[in-house]
Amino acid sequence: MNVLSALKRMVVGRRLANAQLGETLLPKRLALPVFASDALSSVAYAPDEILITLSLAGMAGFLYSWEIAVAVAVVVAVVVMSYRQTVHAYPNGGGDYEVATANLGRYAGLTVASSLLVDYVLTVAVSVSAGVINAKAMLPFLQGYEAWTAVGVIVFLTLMNLRGVRESGSAFAIPTYVFMASMLSMIAIGLVRILILGQPLKSETADLIVVPPEGTGEFVGWAMVAILARSFSSGAAALTGVEAISNGVPAFRKPKSRNAATVLAMLGGLAITMLLGIVALANLTNVHLIDELTGTHYVNAAGETIHSAAHTVTGQLARVVFMDWFEPGFYIVITATMLILFLAANTAFNGFPSLASILAKDGFLPRQLHSRGDRLAFSNGILMLSAAAIVLVLVFDASVTALIQLYVVGVFLSFTVGQLGMIRHWTRELRTEREPKVRGRIVRSRIINTIGATATGAVLIVVLVSKFTHGAYLAVVAMGVLFALMLTISNHYRAVERELALTPDSDRALPSRVRGVVLVQRVNLPTARAIAFARAARSTTLTAVTVAVDDDEVELILDEWEDEDFGIPLKVIASPYREITGPFIKYVAELRSENPRDVVIVYIPEYVVGHWWEQLLHNQTALLIRTRLHFMPGVMVTSVPYQLKSSGRAKAAAHKASQPRLR
Amino acid sequence: MNVLSALKRMVVGRRLANAQLGETLLPKRLALPVFASDALSSVAYAPDEILITLSLAGMAGFLYSWEIAVAVAVVVAVVVMSYRQTVHAYPNGGGDYEVATANLGRYAGLTVASSLLVDYVLTVAVSVSAGVINAKAMLPFLQGYEAWTAVGVIVFLTLMNLRGVRESGSAFAIPTYVFMASMLSMIAIGLVRILILGQPLKSETADLIVVPPEGTGEFVGWAMVAILARSFSSGAAALTGVEAISNGVPAFRKPKSRNAATVLAMLGGLAITMLLGIVALANLTNVHLIDELTGTHYVNAAGETIHSAAHTVTGQLARVVFMDWFEPGFYIVITATMLILFLAANTAFNGFPSLASILAKDGFLPRQLHSRGDRLAFSNGILMLSAAAIVLVLVFDASVTALIQLYVVGVFLSFTVGQLGMIRHWTRELRTEREPKVRGRIVRSRIINTIGATATGAVLIVVLVSKFTHGAYLAVVAMGVLFALMLTISNHYRAVERELALTPDSDRALPSRVRGVVLVQRVNLPTARAIAFARAARSTTLTAVTVAVDDDEVELILDEWEDEDFGIPLKVIASPYREITGPFIKYVAELRSENPRDVVIVYIPEYVVGHWWEQLLHNQTALLIRTRLHFMPGVMVTSVPYQLKSSGRAKAAAHKASQPRLR
Repeated sequence: MNVLSALKRMVVGRRLANAQLGETLLPKRLALPVFASDALSSVAYAPDEILITLSLAGMAGFLYSWEIAVAVAVVVAVVVMSYRQTVHAYPNGGGDYEVATANLGRYAGLTVASSLLVDYVLTVAVSVSAGVINAKAMLPFLQGYEAWTAVGVIVFLTLMNLRGVRESGSAFAIPTYVFMASMLSMIAIGLVRILILGQPLKSETADLIVVPPEGTGEFVGWAMVAILARSFSSGAAALTGVEAISNGVPAFRKPKSRNAATVLAMLGGLAITMLLGIVALANLTNVHLIDELTGTHYVNAAGETIHSAAHTVTGQLARVVFMDWFEPGFYIVITATMLILFLAANTAFNGFPSLASILAKDGFLPRQLHSRGDRLAFSNGILMLSAAAIVLVLVFDASVTALIQLYVVGVFLSFTVGQLGMIRHWTRELRTEREPKVRGRIVRSRIINTIGATATGAVLIVVLVSKFTHGAYLAVVAMGVLFALMLTISNHYRAVERELALTPDSDRALPSRVRGVVLVQRVNLPTARAIAFARAARSTTLTAVTVAVDDDEVELILDEWEDEDFGIPLKVIASPYREITGPFIKYVAELRSENPRDVVIVYIPEYVVGHWWEQLLHNQTALLIRTRLHFMPGVMVTSVPYQLKSSGRAKAAAHKASQPRLR
Repeated sequence: MNVLSALKRMVVGRRLANAQLGETLLPKRLALPVFASDALSSVAYAPDEILITLSLAGMAGFLYSWEIAVAVAVVVAVVVMSYRQTVHAYPNGGGDYEVATANLGRYAGLTVASSLLVDYVLTVAVSVSAGVINAKAMLPFLQGYEAWTAVGVIVFLTLMNLRGVRESGSAFAIPTYVFMASMLSMIAIGLVRILILGQPLKSETADLIVVPPEGTGEFVGWAMVAILARSFSSGAAALTGVEAISNGVPAFRKPKSRNAATVLAMLGGLAITMLLGIVALANLTNVHLIDELTGTHYVNAAGETIHSAAHTVTGQLARVVFMDWFEPGFYIVITATMLILFLAANTAFNGFPSLASILAKDGFLPRQLHSRGDRLAFSNGILMLSAAAIVLVLVFDASVTALIQLYVVGVFLSFTVGQLGMIRHWTRELRTEREPKVRGRIVRSRIINTIGATATGAVLIVVLVSKFTHGAYLAVVAMGVLFALMLTISNHYRAVERELALTPDSDRALPSRVRGVVLVQRVNLPTARAIAFARAARSTTLTAVTVAVDDDEVELILDEWEDEDFGIPLKVIASPYREITGPFIKYVAELRSENPRDVVIVYIPEYVVGHWWEQLLHNQTALLIRTRLHFMPGVMVTSVPYQLKSSGRAKAAAHKASQPRLR
């Protein structure tokens, strides 16, 4: 074991067997933090994005932040209620993909799958970027290095995710609870200090005037509606991650559905409380943000123009609430916020390969991705996710405001399709259900999901219209490409399955005889082994065949053949073009056509070597011959490997590459 | 047949069988032009390079051109005499590589091989660049596009060289004879006009004064010697290609050696005549060249400085000799010069893959390059040569003066080693030879080769010393890399051969029984075929094995298995990590260790598909299993291919890729 593999073992941790999977079932107290990180973390950047978008309308814009927060909170409530129905209906894990596929067909399922895959990438990019920007309130030296810091975090998460789910699961609990506690405390303390104690808390940006970029006219009528719609669309990012629980029902302890629904309700309550609390506090302390990307800027009391963005809302609030009496509070809030954002990114590292595995099982992705234990497949999934997220972070310079334009489309697309699927689900249930009490429940569920579908559909349209040209089109294009790719793969698998199905008419006749042919290129140990094995297999006939490329070589081979006495005849084939493949293929083809009811088995000695470059120096002819023989029906190709001493190294590598990997 | 393959057939031409090779034996009248192109073409740029280097010493430098030309001519005479000995001693084609290997061992042979491979690349780059620069005298619009024109010519030659040697052979004759005739006529007419008719012919650069770059002091003493040495080294480029005949003796009609020696003498005479004639004429017409690269420049009668290079010597001479009375003569000389330079490049396209084939036979390059008929190998050789030459042309901007710094080292290295080999050859002959008359001949030959070795060795030292820092080091580095690479390959093959040799102690026992195992992943036609074939092979035991990755899938397989009644038992292996490879490998390993004297044959159904991306969607597990089984002694892996309909396309492609290619 070399240093690298030791390091890998250290990072990757020990493997888990299927039997150990039971241990990873989550009690509610652990399920809450596991799923909370994704859902609640978005509360850390949604208020910022609301304020930043509103800054386009100058100081007047901020007046609307309260209304937009309430609108987002209402949508959160609707979505949580809707998904509680899903959790009850699909106790075995009803992700939107399964719900859409089961009720609306494969195209709907594929639509959801495409948007989810894109969203996983964006979750990583947005959460990590938001975490880094938040951290700046505490670590000002990060200024200017945001993108590379974010890349570093993603690389770290990638390495961590070569560990199992259990380790990550427990690691979630503490920072998530600290985040919830510190955030709620901050809101409560802030409100008490302002509203009850009457303290005049002012954020660090309270006295800065926000000015829209020059040339921007007054925002009235439709222009104002457009700003409000975009602000709402960005705020709707607060909903990301809410649906994760519906995928994760099987991970809950029994009663799975009820526990999951309970946790979902808790999450919804927490998200709404935090969102409204933060926006309220931001209003009361006069937090003013600017949108660097569009050129809104500050003017300070001295009349000077400031173009650089201020700290995040959380950063400003934590400072104003805690800094003057309990400094550690500030650091706790910022640290917890940063950590929960990184944990949210981590959930995508779990979700992406799992979804890929399900898609592979359904034939939308290469089948070998299905096998859960395939270390290669899972590692590849993690690496693909990581690479895509890193590209996004670098291209958009870790700007949450820019990335969020791409983000929310996929979320609401899968919400909407999922809810439509649920409506169909309940309608189907109603067809068979006769019990009035149960029917009543179903009708009620259907109403809830109809409200959910309508609300999420409306948000989807608002998001699409208000953000399409701001970046959402990129997400739409990516989804379209994934959709087409997966559909092509699926169609291919289906066509192959049809072609390969055993039917009553399928030919089941056994070949009558077996004709063995050993390819001889030189007389040595691999050839001797191939002949010995071929003789042991006792085919009807067995011939050794060599192709006469070089006269001297053929004579040498014939001499050595006589000395060795292998017990089978050696046939020399002429090669007018001095090549091996063609004449040999022709010989096999003739053998086939002379004995059409027989099967031909071609034995090829192969050298098993240790390095890839050694591989280039051997077996090339064998490879060419094998490839061409594969196109000939009724011909089996048998490799008789001979292990050279150097193969030990490669053996270990091959063993390692095919080792199982469990999540 | 699609458009592309039709086009390819058109460009590549029909194939030639071994039997047709006889037709390509060359009579002297064809052998002369075939080999002349490489040897004589260098006369087209050697005088230029002599004058360009001398220009560093200003007008005074040109006074030495005559002495240097004579020195080069003497070396040509010595080398030609030396190689006439080689041709007689090695009638089967005694290239310097064979001579060095046979007499001085593999390191010497490898040294020659490395320098020859590098030289082939430089021959293409230098000849094509020189041809393009020559053409500028006729086609002035090429100015500024030299490099890209040269690249175009190389690409054209690459395409042409997908045709056979015969077509190229005949195509050589006409332009080469035209070149010889027109060049000799030009020299003769020029000398007659000046010396006998007393006409005052003045070249276009006669009245331009050449001034060395500022800051260059007087060239006296060692500095002048250095300039002269470099000028001589560049002029020595005239010798490139002289040795080619010794490689090509087998291509001559009988008596091969004598004919080859005759042609060699003719070539030597022509080369010397042309070289001396051109330099004489250049002196008489006052041709003055400058070295753009080092900053020498012209000053004209009006005192103006001119930095751009003039036409080539050939271009200037053809103009002054012909333009005033027979204009077509000018165009004939320039066109023939250009064509013979391109033909010289073409010879490298023949030589490079041939040498690679010989090196492969001797185990210095991957063995599959040996098979002459392998279209892939030859095509790859041509493409590698072409790519390397294109890179050189672009890097050095098609400057012959720059490229020639790299060129001559390899030529003289192989000359010297070859001649040293010949000395050793004659010494060995003397040991066994008793006939005094023959001994006398041998002693005389040895003296000639000793003179040859001394002369070429001296030139090699002059070239190395005078050009090393000017670019020759690049050629030396390239040769060193090739040397190390080929030595590594050779050592590998030798080690493998030793390891694989059949010895009296080798185990020749036949395995006692054959245990058949069929890998089942689903129940379909490929599996059914694999089972049918495996049953036909009648191994001692035969078991179908499936790995339980997914419970639902296993149940499905078991159901279908019962329906089908394949006649062999199906064993289900548990997979605690939900992966296929590991448990299956473990099963086979156990089967092996329970029956150590038996051989296991594993049947793997494989899907033969049409596109590379389809390949990605299938057979991945099979590939992984096959790779790992290869490391297990006593296990054969049999692919049972099932051809899907889409495989037809790929079959045609595989057939084409393995088609023979004859040169």
